[in-house]
Amino acid sequence: MKAYIISIGDELLIGQTINSNASFIGAKLSEAGIEVSKIITTADTKEDILSDFNEARKRADVIIVTGGLGPTHDDITREAICAFFETGLRRDEDVLNDIKERFARFGREVSPTNEDQCRVPECCIAIRNFNGTAPGFWIDRHDKVFAVMPGVPGEMKAMMNNFVLPNLTARFNGKLKHIARLSVLTTGIAESTLYDKLSPIDEVFRGVKVAFLPNLQGVKIRLTAEAETMEQANELVSAANQQLRLRAGRYIYGKGEEQLGLVVGNLLKERQLTLSIAESCTGGCISNLITDISGSSEYFERGVIAYSNAAKVEILQVDEDLIQEKGSVSDEVAIEMAKGIRAISGTDLGLSITGILGPKGATPTKPVGLVYIAVASHEKALSKKFNFGGTRIENKIRASQAALEMVRRFVLGISLDS
Amino acid sequence: MKAYIISIGDELLIGQTINSNASFIGAKLSEAGIEVSKIITTADTKEDILSDFNEARKRADVIIVTGGLGPTHDDITREAICAFFETGLRRDEDVLNDIKERFARFGREVSPTNEDQCRVPECCIAIRNFNGTAPGFWIDRHDKVFAVMPGVPGEMKAMMNNFVLPNLTARFNGKLKHIARLSVLTTGIAESTLYDKLSPIDEVFRGVKVAFLPNLQGVKIRLTAEAETMEQANELVSAANQQLRLRAGRYIYGKGEEQLGLVVGNLLKERQLTLSIAESCTGGCISNLITDISGSSEYFERGVIAYSNAAKVEILQVDEDLIQEKGSVSDEVAIEMAKGIRAISGTDLGLSITGILGPKGATPTKPVGLVYIAVASHEKALSKKFNFGGTRIENKIRASQAALEMVRRFVLGISLDS
Repeated sequence: MKAYIISIGDELLIGQTINSNASFIGAKLSEAGIEVSKIITTADTKEDILSDFNEARKRADVIIVTGGLGPTHDDITREAICAFFETGLRRDEDVLNDIKERFARFGREVSPTNEDQCRVPECCIAIRNFNGTAPGFWIDRHDKVFAVMPGVPGEMKAMMNNFVLPNLTARFNGKLKHIARLSVLTTGIAESTLYDKLSPIDEVFRGVKVAFLPNLQGVKIRLTAEAETMEQANELVSAANQQLRLRAGRYIYGKGEEQLGLVVGNLLKERQLTLSIAESCTGGCISNLITDISGSSEYFERGVIAYSNAAKVEILQVDEDLIQEKGSVSDEVAIEMAKGIRAISGTDLGLSITGILGPKGATPTKPVGLVYIAVASHEKALSKKFNFGGTRIENKIRASQAALEMVRRFVLGISLDS
Repeated sequence: MKAYIISIGDELLIGQTINSNASFIGAKLSEAGIEVSKIITTADTKEDILSDFNEARKRADVIIVTGGLGPTHDDITREAICAFFETGLRRDEDVLNDIKERFARFGREVSPTNEDQCRVPECCIAIRNFNGTAPGFWIDRHDKVFAVMPGVPGEMKAMMNNFVLPNLTARFNGKLKHIARLSVLTTGIAESTLYDKLSPIDEVFRGVKVAFLPNLQGVKIRLTAEAETMEQANELVSAANQQLRLRAGRYIYGKGEEQLGLVVGNLLKERQLTLSIAESCTGGCISNLITDISGSSEYFERGVIAYSNAAKVEILQVDEDLIQEKGSVSDEVAIEMAKGIRAISGTDLGLSITGILGPKGATPTKPVGLVYIAVASHEKALSKKFNFGGTRIENKIRASQAALEMVRRFVLGISLDS
């Protein structure tokens, strides 16, 4: 069971629109046990579309097509479908009624251009559109299924969920794969170091595909297993996850799409701890991540962006002489900042960060990328030195992620050493 | 001059990662006058990759490949390239030095896995990677160019801008189309209102294609003109830009990819003004945008994230009774916060924001999306009420953009009324 996704539209090719439709469809098909083997983004020309249809029919069982179904001159998918299946158009009364009702609801006249959208290829079952006017087409011919939908995300998603997925599952019942997937999120460890810890991959993770997906937040590890039954597939992934935790547990902060800000927030809530943050170099980025989470006011009390030394001294009560002696980017100042923000806000924990994110600001002894992060509680204050080597924005994101990870480890009592 | 983009990676097919790389590359190639005729997203299997390479070489002059160049077992692009061009690997000393220097900078050992990345296909020029370890490959064979890059966006973008685009332009000099493009950035005006102000488009913008691209920051207007010479194309776009400024000038804050944080920063520098920020609902987002700009410490003195009422009273000296009487989300409190942050930091301007971003926190009289923003100088304080209607994160981004726009208009003396 293989699928091709064909996305039609010049706006996708010239980078004006990001192809999030294909991601949505890819995720849905994968969940349903259908393997997506190719996504083709193609131009609004009949020749290109027909050539892609041909290729897809040769290599896939399911072909999902989106885009080019609107009422304007550059929408040619319907025409291409008719040419491909050597069929004409028929008037679909259900679709016509849908269009009329829709326009009546908005108090608008149905123009001939709108009405024309009720004409669908003779060989298809019309997929009704309750969020727009253009219907989709479901064509089942010679053991291959074509599902054609509009490119407007809301319309496509509704058709996909309400019609295409249930019909594909029914149509290919028994032929679908049983695939289990899990994405495990790590941070504070380089991809190659992680790889070495988990090697030899083939032996450690038997029967499971392991993929490493690095980004500025860390390395995501995707585990995928295919088996005769869903239960077996889940067991394989679960065993692999255990191996992963055994070998790299301290670096794992979450799964799926979880943000570290959410993980830390949940941890603080669970332990009934409050947090305040003093940021210098990250300029509000850490507090921003913490407050992205709904309900963060339960544990986040305040933040201070002490960009100037005056702010460090006046608000955070950092000793002016200490800044003179050690420099504002120093372990000592980071610790004073963490203690200071905690003291003035009365929170359980104080987090601080000071550093040089670049590209300017380096000194002979302090390079761009040098960052100190500290966490203070009523009984202790811990700090750690980092060296980040990217652009200003990359360093900001990496440093903020590292700071949140410090809080996670501090609360859980995991060593801060990598 | 046609181009294919080939994106390699199972994570793209199963919808785990949205293919924003292809959009970036598509936009850049289009700008350079190269037509993107297809984007193919393909699996991490050698057979699939080779078949796509074959297809692409038949139909395109330029083939841009991303992904699958990392150091782990599922990265097979290098192997596929060698098989396709029937070539072996050579050690590239420049690349090896880059890797060693990179690791030295971070104080880490170069493992054999990392070192192996200096081996590149014999037929290629290595594209050096200053943001990561995997080099890219530039292969010019039989009048076709393959440019192969890592899938990590930051690494790919730097290679694209610094190596691939200039080399493509030089290599295909004279064969490229003459297209002028300008993106004009507006904010604080709805797409349909802007459209009405600029209508009738065909008459107002003769010979120029106008596209409206709305996002959370505002509406981007893209002007595109193709002509016999580059000079003519530029003239058409320039005339269109004048028409745009005539009709919607006050909403225009920048062009291209300029962030409003940069525009405001430059304005403050130019006028030698300093700024401090007191945020409640946006939780650091505005300060984060301001400090994304290198050199922002010249004009940004400090920020306070007064998430709790205690922080508003203790640090910003907002009257506790006023908060009791008017509520923390009120015009009056916004103004006191702006005056307060200005007073304690001694800056020329104080910016403040207080609101309810949702989904929780609404009251019978104060709905989700209600936000007050204020700006204070030594002579006056102005405030404005907003109603945003999106998700928490959308509201945060919109409110932060509106706050920066308030500062821009305040400094330039443009009315705050939309």
